[in-house]
Amino acid sequence: MNKVIELLKQHRSIRRYTDQPISEELLGSLIEAGQMASTSSFIQAVSVVRITGEQARAEFAELAGNQPYIESAAEFLVFCADFSRNQVRAGEVAEQEMDYAWAEQFISATVDVGLFAQNVVIAAESEGLGCCYIGGIRNDPDRVTQLLSLPKLVYPVFGLCVGFPDQDPDPKPRMPLEAVLHQGRYREVGEYQSVLDDYDTFVKQYYVQRTNGKLDSTWSELMAKQAISQKRPFMKKYIKKQGFMIK
Amino acid sequence: MNKVIELLKQHRSIRRYTDQPISEELLGSLIEAGQMASTSSFIQAVSVVRITGEQARAEFAELAGNQPYIESAAEFLVFCADFSRNQVRAGEVAEQEMDYAWAEQFISATVDVGLFAQNVVIAAESEGLGCCYIGGIRNDPDRVTQLLSLPKLVYPVFGLCVGFPDQDPDPKPRMPLEAVLHQGRYREVGEYQSVLDDYDTFVKQYYVQRTNGKLDSTWSELMAKQAISQKRPFMKKYIKKQGFMIK
Repeated sequence: MNKVIELLKQHRSIRRYTDQPISEELLGSLIEAGQMASTSSFIQAVSVVRITGEQARAEFAELAGNQPYIESAAEFLVFCADFSRNQVRAGEVAEQEMDYAWAEQFISATVDVGLFAQNVVIAAESEGLGCCYIGGIRNDPDRVTQLLSLPKLVYPVFGLCVGFPDQDPDPKPRMPLEAVLHQGRYREVGEYQSVLDDYDTFVKQYYVQRTNGKLDSTWSELMAKQAISQKRPFMKKYIKKQGFMIK
Repeated sequence: MNKVIELLKQHRSIRRYTDQPISEELLGSLIEAGQMASTSSFIQAVSVVRITGEQARAEFAELAGNQPYIESAAEFLVFCADFSRNQVRAGEVAEQEMDYAWAEQFISATVDVGLFAQNVVIAAESEGLGCCYIGGIRNDPDRVTQLLSLPKLVYPVFGLCVGFPDQDPDPKPRMPLEAVLHQGRYREVGEYQSVLDDYDTFVKQYYVQRTNGKLDSTWSELMAKQAISQKRPFMKKYIKKQGFMIK
């Protein structure tokens, strides 16, 4: 296993940071590493907003469901899917209104953001930094849109805390490879049930050990709790309001 | 710049491969590196289908718009957003039908796939392999669904060619950092127009040089052509048919 793969496999989210800042130069380098990720048909449909100022940080920490590391991390970045730039520039060339309301375009832009951000995370971790993705900014996308002055055809996909770690948690165990990698065709769960049964037992043990018995859920139990509670039912309306997924 | 960041910044898509195979062990290691990427609330909503067999490869190459490297790459992987596994397992625990029809869940799963796949790409490139994302499998998602026996709550986001490179293209120049990284709030294009004007000139020069004058588009011109032609208008209906984005 080479050093890069080792780094990837050691990933864990960091939720406690030292107060050491990240230099402007390093931050720029991380974002540039993100930009070099593949982009669907060269659309480059990503904008990153760096959240500066204590008040803005506090507001994000609160709206994301009280996640204090949004305030304490050296940097907090909001990753946006962005077709506004393309619409303006392409529209000027074509001298007509460009159309980005198709589901296909929503998918392309969202994927672009994922690839870009993951490169930023890998670059950061290679420099000894730690990261935590913050899906919680989707708790209140209207407020985020207002705070960041996002125009139509831009939507905040997730936030990212980046900073020097002040904790050293273990990586969280993932499903066995055979549950995820299918050969030739997709296998339904029934075909590898025992693999997931074993994984459930393993996750339960992991939580019991890590939390001194406070948490003892299997993966399937966690997924059951979550599927009942986490939905953000306003999201479809919000996405459409931003001009996406209309067609 | 450390070696990892250097690797990230040297990325370019590879579309010509040698016939050297990838060992099962290495392939497994790449997928495991993918699994260690962050996953929204631990959903692990990713399945990867490895396309084996010449006939299946040929079919994918054709449906993706005649991309022959889908046949010649050592491996061709289809990355799927997958809530089917979660629905079955969580449903068994909760003894009720779980609901994954919310837009929020479609976003989470699609992002999960992006982070996972980008880790696979970085792992592959760290081993001297080259990759090419294939969005073209979304040309015919119904056919892909049929070919791979995908159930509801699974959709193919993109394909990925992986193999040993038989070409050495230059990285493609991205927008200047200041077009992508916003400070405190989002800036509209008008606020950095000259940056994109310069970039347009630069991209045009890049294409002229790389194609001996056959291609001479600016980035904005490329985006204009594309926005008029590339829409996959069946995508929303397909996504809903698979059970996503209904609510």
